[in-house]
Amino acid sequence: MIIGELLNSSRLAVKDAVASYNTEEIQCLAIAQTEAGADYLDLNCGVFVDDEPQRLIWLLKTVQEVSQLPPCFDSPSPAALAAALEAYDGKKPPLINSISGEKERLKAILPLVKQSGAGVIALCMDDDGIPQSAEARLAVAQKIMAEAEAEDIAPERIFFDPLVQPVATNQQAGRAVMDTVEGLRKNLPSCKMACGLSNISFGLPNRKLLNRLFLVQLVSRGMDTFILNPLDKEIMGALIATRTICGEDAYCGKYLKAHRKGMFE
Amino acid sequence: MIIGELLNSSRLAVKDAVASYNTEEIQCLAIAQTEAGADYLDLNCGVFVDDEPQRLIWLLKTVQEVSQLPPCFDSPSPAALAAALEAYDGKKPPLINSISGEKERLKAILPLVKQSGAGVIALCMDDDGIPQSAEARLAVAQKIMAEAEAEDIAPERIFFDPLVQPVATNQQAGRAVMDTVEGLRKNLPSCKMACGLSNISFGLPNRKLLNRLFLVQLVSRGMDTFILNPLDKEIMGALIATRTICGEDAYCGKYLKAHRKGMFE
Repeated sequence: MIIGELLNSSRLAVKDAVASYNTEEIQCLAIAQTEAGADYLDLNCGVFVDDEPQRLIWLLKTVQEVSQLPPCFDSPSPAALAAALEAYDGKKPPLINSISGEKERLKAILPLVKQSGAGVIALCMDDDGIPQSAEARLAVAQKIMAEAEAEDIAPERIFFDPLVQPVATNQQAGRAVMDTVEGLRKNLPSCKMACGLSNISFGLPNRKLLNRLFLVQLVSRGMDTFILNPLDKEIMGALIATRTICGEDAYCGKYLKAHRKGMFE
Repeated sequence: MIIGELLNSSRLAVKDAVASYNTEEIQCLAIAQTEAGADYLDLNCGVFVDDEPQRLIWLLKTVQEVSQLPPCFDSPSPAALAAALEAYDGKKPPLINSISGEKERLKAILPLVKQSGAGVIALCMDDDGIPQSAEARLAVAQKIMAEAEAEDIAPERIFFDPLVQPVATNQQAGRAVMDTVEGLRKNLPSCKMACGLSNISFGLPNRKLLNRLFLVQLVSRGMDTFILNPLDKEIMGALIATRTICGEDAYCGKYLKAHRKGMFE
């Protein structure tokens, strides 16, 4: 599954559009990502520190006018998340981005997950920061899972994020994520997994190539959801082709369809 | 490691060049592959059924005039292999391509491996053909390994080929190879692994993209040697970038060097 990443206020064009209530600009990005095959639309108003909840509600309503896709509410703020969940009236359950093993964050946001029926992205980190080893990240995931189960939140609603960091500053950053993905698939098979890719290539040239090749390695280990730009034809093509190679595309049907649509040109 | 695949008589230009003893054409391909970073040069005269040994010796001598790289003698014929091994006087041990679990082939070629000190590519198939499952391919590898050990051939000299087949005709063909590679790495850790890539994409469009993405998945599982075209900048770039992502490139040095050389343009 794909979470379209473009409606994020850390991107200048989106920040400006939200600041000026530019409906057309926002809806254009929502439609484009929907048509490109996104399954969720990430909505982030994090740069609006004074009125994040109101901005996020406006963004949601603006997007809902043109897209049926469920939103992925992207905020560390329980107030913003609560307001957005309250305002959402779509049919499909939304996603919350994100919880983590940090005690305060978990305590504030887990009840919102429970109440709303939303899925949730859970970062494999806790109050001690991001663990270096895959084993330690897996241990954090299991701790979060136990907390969620205590709240009757089904494992299928949890998308663990193994936390991608730059390979330029830590040579083992990519390997740690791959090993975490393998560990999660083996030990928490009912859970889902989601992550962004672009951190892997931070500080290096040809970032899109590195992001794409990293995606290939994660898909083939069972990562099921990516936060990415669905308008990037090359990364979408790599995703489709990799699933074909991995045996997840009967008669290569999706691959051949994508080829006919010109995805590989 | 890379085995340059271009000096193969199944390619029309090479067949013609060997047929007419066109030294320049052959040496041009040898030099280009050497400069592009190959570690071995595959030499194949298989289409010359009447005088394969003589053709292979001519090809070897012609290549040795311009390249110090060890050859990879590519023939199912014990007579051609024996002649080529006898004629080779380079410093580095050559490769033999290939043995398999087929009894007659093993019996005829294993003594040549032992005698010559060469490395050898060993196909994970036997007299019953290519096994479908990874477990069965691994079992064939272990059988070959036992035969080699009985002849005092060190595991480091054996390059197991997990046997790549088209995903267009068997949806699980890619997954079977990935699982075989994982199994070999785990159960026969001293052995090496080698394979070609292009079979994976047989019958599908955009073959080079599929070959490249399949390489990425195999590199990240520990496959160490590929039979490929080292003049293909995109596949060489994918190989370098993948090793960087996998934590095998200190300070991203090889990646940055390749970038400065224009490998990613």
